[in-house]
Amino acid sequence: MSNSYCVATYRCYDEKADFAKKAQGIAVGLTVGSWTDLPEAKKAEMERHLGKVIDVQVHEPGANAPLSERYADISIAYPDANFSRDIPALLVTVFGKLSMDGRIKLIDLSFSEAFLSAFPGPKFGLQGVRDLLGVHDRPLLMSIFKSVIGHDLSTLREQFYLQAASGVDLVKDDEILFENPLTPIEKRVEACIQAAKQAESETGQKLLYATNLTGPTFSLLDQARKAIDAGANALLFNVLSYGFDVLSELSRHPDIKVPIMAHPAMAGAFYPSPHYGIAANVLLGKLMRLAGADLVLFPSPYGSVVMPREENMAIKEVLLTQQASDYVYSSEASSSNGALSLKTSFPVPSAGIHPGLVPLILRDFGEQVIVNAGGGIHGHPMGTIAGGRAFRQAIAACQAGIPLRQYAENHPELQAAIDAWGIKE
Amino acid sequence: MSNSYCVATYRCYDEKADFAKKAQGIAVGLTVGSWTDLPEAKKAEMERHLGKVIDVQVHEPGANAPLSERYADISIAYPDANFSRDIPALLVTVFGKLSMDGRIKLIDLSFSEAFLSAFPGPKFGLQGVRDLLGVHDRPLLMSIFKSVIGHDLSTLREQFYLQAASGVDLVKDDEILFENPLTPIEKRVEACIQAAKQAESETGQKLLYATNLTGPTFSLLDQARKAIDAGANALLFNVLSYGFDVLSELSRHPDIKVPIMAHPAMAGAFYPSPHYGIAANVLLGKLMRLAGADLVLFPSPYGSVVMPREENMAIKEVLLTQQASDYVYSSEASSSNGALSLKTSFPVPSAGIHPGLVPLILRDFGEQVIVNAGGGIHGHPMGTIAGGRAFRQAIAACQAGIPLRQYAENHPELQAAIDAWGIKE
Repeated sequence: MSNSYCVATYRCYDEKADFAKKAQGIAVGLTVGSWTDLPEAKKAEMERHLGKVIDVQVHEPGANAPLSERYADISIAYPDANFSRDIPALLVTVFGKLSMDGRIKLIDLSFSEAFLSAFPGPKFGLQGVRDLLGVHDRPLLMSIFKSVIGHDLSTLREQFYLQAASGVDLVKDDEILFENPLTPIEKRVEACIQAAKQAESETGQKLLYATNLTGPTFSLLDQARKAIDAGANALLFNVLSYGFDVLSELSRHPDIKVPIMAHPAMAGAFYPSPHYGIAANVLLGKLMRLAGADLVLFPSPYGSVVMPREENMAIKEVLLTQQASDYVYSSEASSSNGALSLKTSFPVPSAGIHPGLVPLILRDFGEQVIVNAGGGIHGHPMGTIAGGRAFRQAIAACQAGIPLRQYAENHPELQAAIDAWGIKE
Repeated sequence: MSNSYCVATYRCYDEKADFAKKAQGIAVGLTVGSWTDLPEAKKAEMERHLGKVIDVQVHEPGANAPLSERYADISIAYPDANFSRDIPALLVTVFGKLSMDGRIKLIDLSFSEAFLSAFPGPKFGLQGVRDLLGVHDRPLLMSIFKSVIGHDLSTLREQFYLQAASGVDLVKDDEILFENPLTPIEKRVEACIQAAKQAESETGQKLLYATNLTGPTFSLLDQARKAIDAGANALLFNVLSYGFDVLSELSRHPDIKVPIMAHPAMAGAFYPSPHYGIAANVLLGKLMRLAGADLVLFPSPYGSVVMPREENMAIKEVLLTQQASDYVYSSEASSSNGALSLKTSFPVPSAGIHPGLVPLILRDFGEQVIVNAGGGIHGHPMGTIAGGRAFRQAIAACQAGIPLRQYAENHPELQAAIDAWGIKE
């Protein structure tokens, strides 16, 4: 009988460690605890619980580099038999105690087919979101509510209407808008969906509004039901402040009949250090998709809050891949040729995006992306409606292969945006 | 009417930033969004939602230090009016987007009295745990189940009995033991509590067994009820893999009639980097106590997995302080003189502890500490029972002011432990 394993890969810095020995120590210490002391009969019985070293790649620092740059990438296979099929159990197993043991970062995860099969993944996924909107032939456009704290329903409704009328496909709440007496979730949804309908009757364009799901964990399902009953057609969720399992529980629940948009709030506490934490492709990529995020926001390489391009592309790859081999660990090569059972998640590079960045976004992400802007829409010199239009024009220009400056000659909204923020190439 | 605020302090590295301006940008950007552009009438209305810069302490690097070491400690007050009274809302507000914006670490939090009042805190606390055990005159001793994966109930029961008979006050599950067919939680609790009773009848000493609460988030309450119905008298919980709010919800729930022990699994993804993440005193100190952890485990400065002593002492301080002023932010000096409404949490410095470290632990933590050991008990050359005894002897020696070597002359278990692992001074 062959066992199944989930595999964690770590980047581990140490000036003088014997990395092969260290890897062996992890594989044994975080599974059966001790091995060499066990009697042979016991070994046979415990073999199925024993971790295995899959790979150790040592990177010695160059001649002029300090010893502190010496590291190894270590891959350890953990038997499924050791943990239940949920993300907290997996993370505690592979990076619970180990996270505190020196300079070590979790840089990749892959899963057994058995583990993976416990996760339905995104309920809608990229294609499902496109189907809801009826838009299949271009990148989508999203705008972000801004400066909504302290405002009442009518102000919110007005801001929503302007965004909706500007040609965006989705509007998301500000992630720092929580339950409050002025705009409680069910009232907010009602007002915004009303404004969306009004705009739709004028533009013929459908719209998703991702309302921020907040409050105590054990009340989130009720809160989501309340929002959905009031007409919410999407939810925004600050996944990392609640834990991946809550997303996983919400997304698989039959009452959650709308897409979930994962916000990366607090992600910066995990991914940016080279020496500690969890890499962005795992944190905002694989785990978000596994847990069922239909859309995933993350900083872009271009805007006001930036992430290195390489990390960004790694997130994109794992959100969009349809190859099982990118997610599934199998010691038998044969079984890694199939299609991944999880729907794809829509990548949403965010923060400080303006129309002059659209060519870069489309170059890096292709058409399967959501262009997402806050200030780049609301702060447009000609107003919010022009702000959305300028983005749609930038997208259309890119799709037609026309340089933005040329397209802007007949499109004053795009021209004004370029005058305000420039073009980045 | 005066507003109430929660305050976040950040260490922010930047080679050339105008930190005062940066602080102002945070205070406005993460609250009302924009300020200078608002009409005066609107400003009056929005004032209560506006963040305030409390302090900016710039540390210029010394003459020979690189510019990359330039940083400022920035304190920002966030109006309570902006967020609901739960930890996810607070963290997303103060360190959601900001966590991703350059080299910045959350190094302290203080709370308004109003925010704090929404948290009952530890249900038992340090004193409550002592009361349950009937031990008030010495540091407590805890042992950790080791190598339990893949073992059956009778092996578990036997290992438990040996620990219990060795003189420990508490036994904790291995945090990587999840629901499994061999030792499901209710069977595990039954077997271990039975073993505890047997040992108690022999030693006259009471015992708490912290069983690991695991599985899907929305089933944790039921799982905890099942364990408590089976006789569990404490729970172990991997807080950071579920989120602080789940601990907060569990600890305040009337059905959870036993102490909760918070495990630091995954904490190393947050605290060790000087540039990113959340400092240990916030992560494993203030937030754990606020969320209701009766006992908090964390790496010690002495053992196999280490944390700098200064950070360790900062955790201890915030778990044990009874001064409201350590937790409460108030612009009025008068109101910071009271006693903190939260019960204290028991500090449990852990990992690689052996009897020769007891003098250091007691020097740093005093008597309000739990000495916690795994290998240092099970791996004792004379066996598990001798392992626990050696620790109790080391504690007794310290309390009597007798050097360990001298005390060991008449205590062979302690002598054997010293021979095996030495004494650290």
